[in-house]
Amino acid sequence: MWSGRLGAETSPLVERYTSSIDVDRRLAPDDVAGSRAHAAMLRDVGLIGAADHAAIDAALGQIDTELRSGAFRFDAADEDIHSAVERRLFEIAGPVAGVLHTGRSRNDQVATDMRLAAKRACADIVGALLALQTSLMRRAGEEADTVMPSYTHLQRAQPVTLGHHLLAYVAMAERDAGRLLDARTRCDVLPLGSGAVAGSTLPLDRGAVATALGFAASSRNSMDAVSDRDFAVEIAAACALVMVHASRLAEEIVLWTSAEFGFAVLPDTHATGSSLMPNKKNADVAELARGRAGRVVGDTVALLTMLKGLPLAYNRDLQEDKSALFDAVDTALATITALTEVIDVLEFDRGAMRRAASDPDVLATDAAEYLVTRGVAFREAHAVVGRLVRRVHEQRRTLADLSVDEWRDASPAFDESVLQLFDLDAAISRRRTPGGPNRESIDAQLAAARRGIEQARARLDSSG
Amino acid sequence: MWSGRLGAETSPLVERYTSSIDVDRRLAPDDVAGSRAHAAMLRDVGLIGAADHAAIDAALGQIDTELRSGAFRFDAADEDIHSAVERRLFEIAGPVAGVLHTGRSRNDQVATDMRLAAKRACADIVGALLALQTSLMRRAGEEADTVMPSYTHLQRAQPVTLGHHLLAYVAMAERDAGRLLDARTRCDVLPLGSGAVAGSTLPLDRGAVATALGFAASSRNSMDAVSDRDFAVEIAAACALVMVHASRLAEEIVLWTSAEFGFAVLPDTHATGSSLMPNKKNADVAELARGRAGRVVGDTVALLTMLKGLPLAYNRDLQEDKSALFDAVDTALATITALTEVIDVLEFDRGAMRRAASDPDVLATDAAEYLVTRGVAFREAHAVVGRLVRRVHEQRRTLADLSVDEWRDASPAFDESVLQLFDLDAAISRRRTPGGPNRESIDAQLAAARRGIEQARARLDSSG
Amino acid sequence: MWSGRLGAETSPLVERYTSSIDVDRRLAPDDVAGSRAHAAMLRDVGLIGAADHAAIDAALGQIDTELRSGAFRFDAADEDIHSAVERRLFEIAGPVAGVLHTGRSRNDQVATDMRLAAKRACADIVGALLALQTSLMRRAGEEADTVMPSYTHLQRAQPVTLGHHLLAYVAMAERDAGRLLDARTRCDVLPLGSGAVAGSTLPLDRGAVATALGFAASSRNSMDAVSDRDFAVEIAAACALVMVHASRLAEEIVLWTSAEFGFAVLPDTHATGSSLMPNKKNADVAELARGRAGRVVGDTVALLTMLKGLPLAYNRDLQEDKSALFDAVDTALATITALTEVIDVLEFDRGAMRRAASDPDVLATDAAEYLVTRGVAFREAHAVVGRLVRRVHEQRRTLADLSVDEWRDASPAFDESVLQLFDLDAAISRRRTPGGPNRESIDAQLAAARRGIEQARARLDSSG
Amino acid sequence: MWSGRLGAETSPLVERYTSSIDVDRRLAPDDVAGSRAHAAMLRDVGLIGAADHAAIDAALGQIDTELRSGAFRFDAADEDIHSAVERRLFEIAGPVAGVLHTGRSRNDQVATDMRLAAKRACADIVGALLALQTSLMRRAGEEADTVMPSYTHLQRAQPVTLGHHLLAYVAMAERDAGRLLDARTRCDVLPLGSGAVAGSTLPLDRGAVATALGFAASSRNSMDAVSDRDFAVEIAAACALVMVHASRLAEEIVLWTSAEFGFAVLPDTHATGSSLMPNKKNADVAELARGRAGRVVGDTVALLTMLKGLPLAYNRDLQEDKSALFDAVDTALATITALTEVIDVLEFDRGAMRRAASDPDVLATDAAEYLVTRGVAFREAHAVVGRLVRRVHEQRRTLADLSVDEWRDASPAFDESVLQLFDLDAAISRRRTPGGPNRESIDAQLAAARRGIEQARARLDSSG
Repeated sequence: MWSGRLGAETSPLVERYTSSIDVDRRLAPDDVAGSRAHAAMLRDVGLIGAADHAAIDAALGQIDTELRSGAFRFDAADEDIHSAVERRLFEIAGPVAGVLHTGRSRNDQVATDMRLAAKRACADIVGALLALQTSLMRRAGEEADTVMPSYTHLQRAQPVTLGHHLLAYVAMAERDAGRLLDARTRCDVLPLGSGAVAGSTLPLDRGAVATALGFAASSRNSMDAVSDRDFAVEIAAACALVMVHASRLAEEIVLWTSAEFGFAVLPDTHATGSSLMPNKKNADVAELARGRAGRVVGDTVALLTMLKGLPLAYNRDLQEDKSALFDAVDTALATITALTEVIDVLEFDRGAMRRAASDPDVLATDAAEYLVTRGVAFREAHAVVGRLVRRVHEQRRTLADLSVDEWRDASPAFDESVLQLFDLDAAISRRRTPGGPNRESIDAQLAAARRGIEQARARLDSSG
Repeated sequence: MWSGRLGAETSPLVERYTSSIDVDRRLAPDDVAGSRAHAAMLRDVGLIGAADHAAIDAALGQIDTELRSGAFRFDAADEDIHSAVERRLFEIAGPVAGVLHTGRSRNDQVATDMRLAAKRACADIVGALLALQTSLMRRAGEEADTVMPSYTHLQRAQPVTLGHHLLAYVAMAERDAGRLLDARTRCDVLPLGSGAVAGSTLPLDRGAVATALGFAASSRNSMDAVSDRDFAVEIAAACALVMVHASRLAEEIVLWTSAEFGFAVLPDTHATGSSLMPNKKNADVAELARGRAGRVVGDTVALLTMLKGLPLAYNRDLQEDKSALFDAVDTALATITALTEVIDVLEFDRGAMRRAASDPDVLATDAAEYLVTRGVAFREAHAVVGRLVRRVHEQRRTLADLSVDEWRDASPAFDESVLQLFDLDAAISRRRTPGGPNRESIDAQLAAARRGIEQARARLDSSG
Repeated sequence: MWSGRLGAETSPLVERYTSSIDVDRRLAPDDVAGSRAHAAMLRDVGLIGAADHAAIDAALGQIDTELRSGAFRFDAADEDIHSAVERRLFEIAGPVAGVLHTGRSRNDQVATDMRLAAKRACADIVGALLALQTSLMRRAGEEADTVMPSYTHLQRAQPVTLGHHLLAYVAMAERDAGRLLDARTRCDVLPLGSGAVAGSTLPLDRGAVATALGFAASSRNSMDAVSDRDFAVEIAAACALVMVHASRLAEEIVLWTSAEFGFAVLPDTHATGSSLMPNKKNADVAELARGRAGRVVGDTVALLTMLKGLPLAYNRDLQEDKSALFDAVDTALATITALTEVIDVLEFDRGAMRRAASDPDVLATDAAEYLVTRGVAFREAHAVVGRLVRRVHEQRRTLADLSVDEWRDASPAFDESVLQLFDLDAAISRRRTPGGPNRESIDAQLAAARRGIEQARARLDSSG
Repeated sequence: MWSGRLGAETSPLVERYTSSIDVDRRLAPDDVAGSRAHAAMLRDVGLIGAADHAAIDAALGQIDTELRSGAFRFDAADEDIHSAVERRLFEIAGPVAGVLHTGRSRNDQVATDMRLAAKRACADIVGALLALQTSLMRRAGEEADTVMPSYTHLQRAQPVTLGHHLLAYVAMAERDAGRLLDARTRCDVLPLGSGAVAGSTLPLDRGAVATALGFAASSRNSMDAVSDRDFAVEIAAACALVMVHASRLAEEIVLWTSAEFGFAVLPDTHATGSSLMPNKKNADVAELARGRAGRVVGDTVALLTMLKGLPLAYNRDLQEDKSALFDAVDTALATITALTEVIDVLEFDRGAMRRAASDPDVLATDAAEYLVTRGVAFREAHAVVGRLVRRVHEQRRTLADLSVDEWRDASPAFDESVLQLFDLDAAISRRRTPGGPNRESIDAQLAAARRGIEQARARLDSSG
């Protein structure tokens, strides 16, 4: 491509080390789309004739077909997807292919391809997140009255419902989708027309290309346009948080399906066994989802570290954006999709959950708040009940075993109504603050989540 | 605080290891503000009497004053800022202090404090970014006609203007501000009222507290509310990108002030010397800005890794959000502020830049595009000019030394007008594509940047 | 310090941004020790007179005392520990202080200070790791016969002993100590005498300084010596792995002390409660140990990212080595120390562990290997037993409920001796392969671990 | 493989999400070697007969051949390399294949495969580092007298030689090799025989397998053995530091080949051009080496984050060790190999370097040390010369332009001999401290480096 300037053959080792075709070939459809839009613009502004354009466009159409069908043959000498497509274009269309690169550099070309791919990846992951939300919401609706203990520090804390617990993940997914939609908006800017770094002396119509490719705007500064990889970092970081959320849900699936918790069972279709131990049934999907959080954190680090300290404008270091971004979005998409299926089929054991929640300890806070409603200062109420908890533990009894007299001994503000605290369903109903675990709150959460999904869909539809 | 429940004194080593007071004392104003809003609400819903409220509020007011004046005395036993404030509240107000914790846990309290601090940090950094943009825009306006070479791969590429180069960083800062404003919007949600994990059995008015503290909304799910640290990750990641941009600008300042480039000089006020070498004058601020990018990438990793695999809801691991988030926002704020001052005082050497841009090689693309306008296919034009470049390098001449005949020998499409290509100012003017380096584009960039600043200010003003 | 060269006062903002005194003041003892060794060498080679040396050494002795007692007063203008010490030296000793910096730069001085501190940190953490090993080994010896289920995928797998389980962490700690000792050996090289970058024109005796400061060798290349921070990265990375191991042990403590597992109880001295819930007793030390793994991973990233792409030799970016390295070593040291105390006091519930291990599923592998010893190919044996496990689960029975006939129906290779498989203690004894869970193996592991500790102590003692 | 236990077909999505065959197929030779050693041991301890062993070994030999030749056909259903090999073994050898998995789990099998691959990777990278050292040492010997400026803060500091500068990278590579050799020693431990987690009830001879596979020892604790991935972290972290060093050397190549420095030229065989700009000649290998540092930092983070918080023993998360470790070692190996070739062919411009070093400022330290040898305290000498530097800069003169009288005015300790300071070669010779830039020091560095290489080769040869 630069044999005019550099006289000698490139060293094979240099070729291998600098080649990106194994990673960037997935940009093929974007590269062809970008070239077709560029060629049409060149024709419209008069830089190439109609016949030349027609020949180029037809050849690009054929290349697109070959790429999609798998018929496209890559050469060992194809350094990247851009040179592969251009090489094939020459084979099909002959010397007229030489006009396509008019007013264009691989620097703005690859930035354009990457943004097209990044926008699509955002949309795909948002779609998967909405599906996960939908699945979680369906299960949450079914389990709105399933009482279970909530945990803090992995110690039983207070009673909640499984529906409420699952809706916490809906809230996370909603924020994830919002972040990815914001990232997509910031990514929705066309770099093409920036040339290698300084724009072009030719009368290019950037707006037309932006419209043709579905970009909301054109970049405002050519030097920034060819060296900006913010969108890759922002999307990777958003995916890292998606994966962290996935890892938290995964951790719970692992805990819940353990013999010790026994809150849920995976169907055999979604579990794996052991090559050695005939007894094993494991939640491998959840474990991998958890483990793969690490790789997306790593991808984000790779991008940030790669960019650190680079002067303007394009530097070849930027080629490293691809493997990291693609790995981040692929991992997030596959993980959310797999976890959605797991959520769909997970079999909850309502009885086991209720049994765990029937530990009277989890109502100690209710006893303290009972005192508050009878005029005891909270700190005092907390101490009173704390001492009772300590005592029953020492006696291997439970709070539910205490007699009214024992309660009254601890504080005169108790009367026999304290015994009614230990009705689990009533305990759920009592938690009336907005954002709480009872059915009313769950209904409100579901309604809000549905609105969020509609808004996300509207944002997805409104562009590119 | 839990001496009712746990009978023994906590081990001193455990106290030391779990204490966060050294890090979270900066939350003091937020903690007091949150407590005052909570107390007012408790009064309004009838959970505490007016007199008790008045006593508590007065004491909190006094504590606020003590904290701001430095008169507040921390105890060795103060585990965190919440217990320090509560301890002092008891000292001032006596037993009535015991009602303040009604319907509140440190889990939702610290999440509230952190969100108040995080929102303020976002606003502060956005403010600093707008100041940096303003400074860069002023310098860019002054240097709109200062010709310099652009670089790709740190090799001279094509002529641009310094104004255009500086505006690339305005574009980065604008995206940074957008990310932080988006993060702030997502952070603008009140957790208080979520209790430890499951809400409360008491009739709390969460909306009133949200309004009092300037939050746009209340959290929808109590389990999510106490265990969500997305805002910390999102802000840290946005700061990491701020720092990566700072590191790129810093790298250029280091390059430009080197003897080899000589494009700029730091005034003695903004340079440092050597303890050994009497000749040295170094750009230490820029180097530290570059090096400190690493720590904010590290902070982001710390947060993501900390969250990975945590089950719901609150776990003590979350305490680690503070040092990482505070370090990220402090570093970003200090760095942007310092770089703004450096940009303000940096002395550009326009002559040196123009001399560097006068390397005729940087107009090779113009020669190729000249041929394109005369009907030569770009690939052919590129090869023709590439061969000329190679030849003049071998002959230790430059493109500007070529005679019209030599040009014509290379391609019959050249005529004597080719010699006019080597007027640098005309070369800048020729780059007419939107986003290019000339004055018209710079004016457009400045106008757009001003609109961006106004919009950012409006978003800052519109909330909290 | 460079007011000769740079005429103007440094901008206050630049001073603040570049100051490191808050972080590097802990290097004070190393800085003074380095200066005293340097001064003695300058006297011995004749660069300063005996009287001047005596005055300087006495003043440095006084400074050391002031620093250790807290009497040393830092100035707002002290940029770093080196300038603070030099400033005070002038105050005490007068103009003669001006000779101390002969043949020395802050570049080689700070590298020397950092290596002294790094070596000491390695030794401290290794010491803590040996104490953790000792504690784990004591508990492992006590629990050599305590049967518990091992877990893979957090599913019960096969019976092991708690002693064996704890010894897995001894193996990790032994590798950690080995890594830190290797890192310390590579760190044990004196940079002083490298000057700012190019050595010195003065007749310095580097070997004498190395001996005085306890370094095993002097650096071989001055440019490398002032810009090398490998030791910081290597130690931080080793600490990250220490913390990852701590996080794994912490996770198990959290699981074991949960109501669901119930394998262990923390004494009240080593647990914390809740500000809201009177029932809670949490393993906060373990959770913080787990969460703090993130910050040390982040520190490692900060160092690597800071170093990436720096040209030789010293750049101010390197100042950022301090906060990251100090945070990594402090966190590792405090965490190992805290976990050791937790291991010391953790109360195991042997009955609960044995009950969990009494799940007959965990002996399914024994049944398959029983068949192998009777000539059945393992894959076939695995399938036979797997089908039995599935069947008993469907029937809500266990493997231990199967009659001899049922076993024989599954495979004619079973006879009544299969029923003896379900003796847990015998099952432990059967696992005779070296590295297994029984007492013989535990004794061998303990003996090997004791040898490892002796070797580590010998390496610690053998140098500086 | 577990169809006995789990009745249903695995969901296709679960199969896809959990499959590792795309990544772990490169372990094929190790997997086969491990199986052959295991089978031979099973025969020797009497667990399988000689004829069965012969059939299995022959089939494994055939599989090895198929894998190496590319004739091996992977199935869509092959979940990982272990199941692929076992599936093929059944095809070739029939039911007897079922005995191979006796006393072995995929947990200890994959750990064994990974360690074999990791040990080989360490050896390969160490070999590449020794080659890089050799190349740098050859160039350093050639350029032992080539004077150039050293830089601190990218400002010219003092004169050094190019030979000395290159030897700084030899020192880095030597430490890198040491770290990888230490990592390899810690990795040289056989996990096989640990079973899934708890060893085996069968009489396995682990020592025989260790010897057959070239491991120095067998693991001491079965639970640690199957869940330990320290070796992956340690090697990845060592590779991250290798890459950071590569990024520093790369940065210098980029700087040196810029028009502004002009210290070196890449031959056309090792440079790349631009698709748009006919003038460009770029150092893409160096830029990619610099950018790829980020990905190996990311790989290290991925591994650490994946391991964080995992309870014992094997969890499926560990499968993620492969992509990260393989990426780290592949990137380091390819980068060192590519940079070695670049170092071999880089054309230095000795004249340009000497011209840059002829800036008299770089001898300011010599002037100060000149005063020291005449009894002026260094701090005073520094100030005297600093003021002279400032004055000549203001006058647009240089230190070399000062008359003897001007020197004497600045300090009476100067006499006419000061003018001789400005002989560059003498300035190099003056720097006599060990570790300095002159030929004597370079010879010593080369000799030490040669000894280091011999020792590294001896360590490589001494094991596995």
